[in-house]
Amino acid sequence: MKKNVLIIGAGAVGAVVAHKCAQSSDVFASVCLASKNVAKCDAIIDSVNKKNYQTVAGFQFYSREVNAYNTEDLVTLIRSTETQIVINVCTVFVNMNILGACLETGAAYIDTAVHEDYSVMNAPYPWYANYEWKKRELCKEKGVTAILGSGFDPGVVNAYCAYAQKYEFDSIESIDIMDVNDGDHGHYFSTNFDPEINLREIIEDAGCLEDGQWRTYPHHSRSMKYDFPEVGEHKLYLMGHDEVHSLSKNIPGVKTVRFWMGFGDHYLKCLEVFEKVGLLNHETVTTNNGEKVVPLHTLKACLPDPASLAPKYKGKTCIGTLIKGKRDGQDKELLVYNICDHEVTYADIDSQAIAFTAGVPPVAAAKLIASGDWDLKAMVNVEELDPIPFFERLAEMGISTEIHDLSANKGSSSNRVLYA
Amino acid sequence: MKKNVLIIGAGAVGAVVAHKCAQSSDVFASVCLASKNVAKCDAIIDSVNKKNYQTVAGFQFYSREVNAYNTEDLVTLIRSTETQIVINVCTVFVNMNILGACLETGAAYIDTAVHEDYSVMNAPYPWYANYEWKKRELCKEKGVTAILGSGFDPGVVNAYCAYAQKYEFDSIESIDIMDVNDGDHGHYFSTNFDPEINLREIIEDAGCLEDGQWRTYPHHSRSMKYDFPEVGEHKLYLMGHDEVHSLSKNIPGVKTVRFWMGFGDHYLKCLEVFEKVGLLNHETVTTNNGEKVVPLHTLKACLPDPASLAPKYKGKTCIGTLIKGKRDGQDKELLVYNICDHEVTYADIDSQAIAFTAGVPPVAAAKLIASGDWDLKAMVNVEELDPIPFFERLAEMGISTEIHDLSANKGSSSNRVLYA
Repeated sequence: MKKNVLIIGAGAVGAVVAHKCAQSSDVFASVCLASKNVAKCDAIIDSVNKKNYQTVAGFQFYSREVNAYNTEDLVTLIRSTETQIVINVCTVFVNMNILGACLETGAAYIDTAVHEDYSVMNAPYPWYANYEWKKRELCKEKGVTAILGSGFDPGVVNAYCAYAQKYEFDSIESIDIMDVNDGDHGHYFSTNFDPEINLREIIEDAGCLEDGQWRTYPHHSRSMKYDFPEVGEHKLYLMGHDEVHSLSKNIPGVKTVRFWMGFGDHYLKCLEVFEKVGLLNHETVTTNNGEKVVPLHTLKACLPDPASLAPKYKGKTCIGTLIKGKRDGQDKELLVYNICDHEVTYADIDSQAIAFTAGVPPVAAAKLIASGDWDLKAMVNVEELDPIPFFERLAEMGISTEIHDLSANKGSSSNRVLYA
Repeated sequence: MKKNVLIIGAGAVGAVVAHKCAQSSDVFASVCLASKNVAKCDAIIDSVNKKNYQTVAGFQFYSREVNAYNTEDLVTLIRSTETQIVINVCTVFVNMNILGACLETGAAYIDTAVHEDYSVMNAPYPWYANYEWKKRELCKEKGVTAILGSGFDPGVVNAYCAYAQKYEFDSIESIDIMDVNDGDHGHYFSTNFDPEINLREIIEDAGCLEDGQWRTYPHHSRSMKYDFPEVGEHKLYLMGHDEVHSLSKNIPGVKTVRFWMGFGDHYLKCLEVFEKVGLLNHETVTTNNGEKVVPLHTLKACLPDPASLAPKYKGKTCIGTLIKGKRDGQDKELLVYNICDHEVTYADIDSQAIAFTAGVPPVAAAKLIASGDWDLKAMVNVEELDPIPFFERLAEMGISTEIHDLSANKGSSSNRVLYA
């Protein structure tokens, strides 16, 4: 039986999910794209229709308006659309509402990031258990499948760990997730995701597990250089990130789990100005004219819409997981990674690579729920699932998996394509 | 007969004007401080009262609320307070309203900057005649004294030109006004005046008269270094500014009139970020949540209140006029200037030097209207008036006038204090 899918969120990632679902009418019977702003949904549906994908007869693709902060509205929407799988690519502040609606209706739930409370910054590490994990027992009781953090990072990078654990290592000591965008969008400054989420995330304290201890550092206070396949050397900064929490729990014996992101000097200078001046403040301030404004909302209104960056984006992203451990008593070190080209993803579905790499994996997850492979009737993070069918679905949709083996010989390395 | 003064505007400059008027109860019978925000007036009056200045018996100092965009309100206020002299240190967008109310009531008018239309950026040069100068004939007809641009720059720097023309030169070829703040307020970024005015002004095209031609350059596209007395070498950038307009008309034979302001690299980088990102936009934009916001208003709400900078401000300002011309057939070059120390002005009247140098001169002008010296019953710019009594009043209130003579001997220079 083909499944009815509900996508919630009509941003740049929502557009990728919509295109990839429309390319998958062999698996999905219908797709509803919902957002508080139905005009954005309709614009995405237009862009999908312009692509003239060959769809199976009877496939339906339509839009609905929804207030994702209102669980009752979500329940009504899920029921009226006969949704079996919800792909949540909306703001992370509504995760618990959408998960609640899935628990109420029995629909499967997929998201790509951990829930956050808008008013809380720098929650103490680790924090996955603050929200979603509290519903783990209830998912099991009700037989509801919930796949948490199924974007690229978190998501695919977690599957790299599951693969490494199962097929490459006897024991894993450290995991360093590294995310670098070697592309150029041509704007003076832009975020690649919703600035409200992205800029908050970047200025939060950088938390990580190191040598078995949870540690927190001021943002951008720790950096390293890394020479990546294809995109070359980049400077990376330690950041807090969702996958650090679940991997530290789900990869047995791991002592170090860190997340690193590449930033250029110009980007960091702009960020410094925004932060020091108070433009990243997400609380209301009063202007001289008595207007109530949220500085971060004003900044967001000034910045390019991330969804608008795609046509001119050039270059590639590289996101990977550097894993160190033992195999047969020997030290082993692998970078499992993907290279994604902004121009290739634009040619495919009008998207830039960052939204593409974030939006394809939840569609792969939805396909694996539809096929039964990942339909566990329980709440899981991606590293708890079989990575092989995930890599296969990703490769079919344009996301390859490669391995850079740094332990082959001292001072040399080898590269192999795992799935493409 | 002592005069009743009305101060309109309760910002950092308004506070200076208020303090200096309260120190001048021998000249002024009463002072009313008016603003749309009467609480700001009352806070200034409190700060004046705390100083316990010795005032002449019967001297009155009080606040009133006024909407300075409403000429009728202003007329009512001037009449009800029996005001004879209005000191306008409000936003420049209301100059024509306040001037109109003075024309209606016969009160003398003093301002410190040229009127601007909020919606107009980069008006073609020269632009003094666009607003105030249209009322010149009417002032003469009605016998209303209006002294335009009587702050420091414009204002005192114009008097330097009048002095040079009268006492130092046979002919003046070029005038370069140079404004540098060597002080440190300790904040990451702050403007010293209302950010809304200051940041607009800074990103406007830089217009000037050069070799008898009006020329316009992109902002910050022309710079020079200059070695100032006391504060040393600074990098200065060509800017458009009010005094360029009137001096080009009122100093006979002058071929070049330019305005230069000192900026540090960090300040310019912040300005670049604000401008390129769109945060200096003074038009309304709509946020993702549907809120209507003016980016420049939001930025202003985030920045320190210029009035709050004074307590921690260290260092000095130097503002002067570099004048080149002929005397007795020989080349002559003088820098007429003032040095002002942030800590000294704070000790005097709780002000930083930039507000102090802007706020003391209109009080000097008001005293000269009260004494009759400058009560010409006509509209004039400061360079059209006798500079000597102005220098005397300024010196009494803490603003000295000095001369750096660069033509004394080739390769050497001499310094003399004119008024202190």
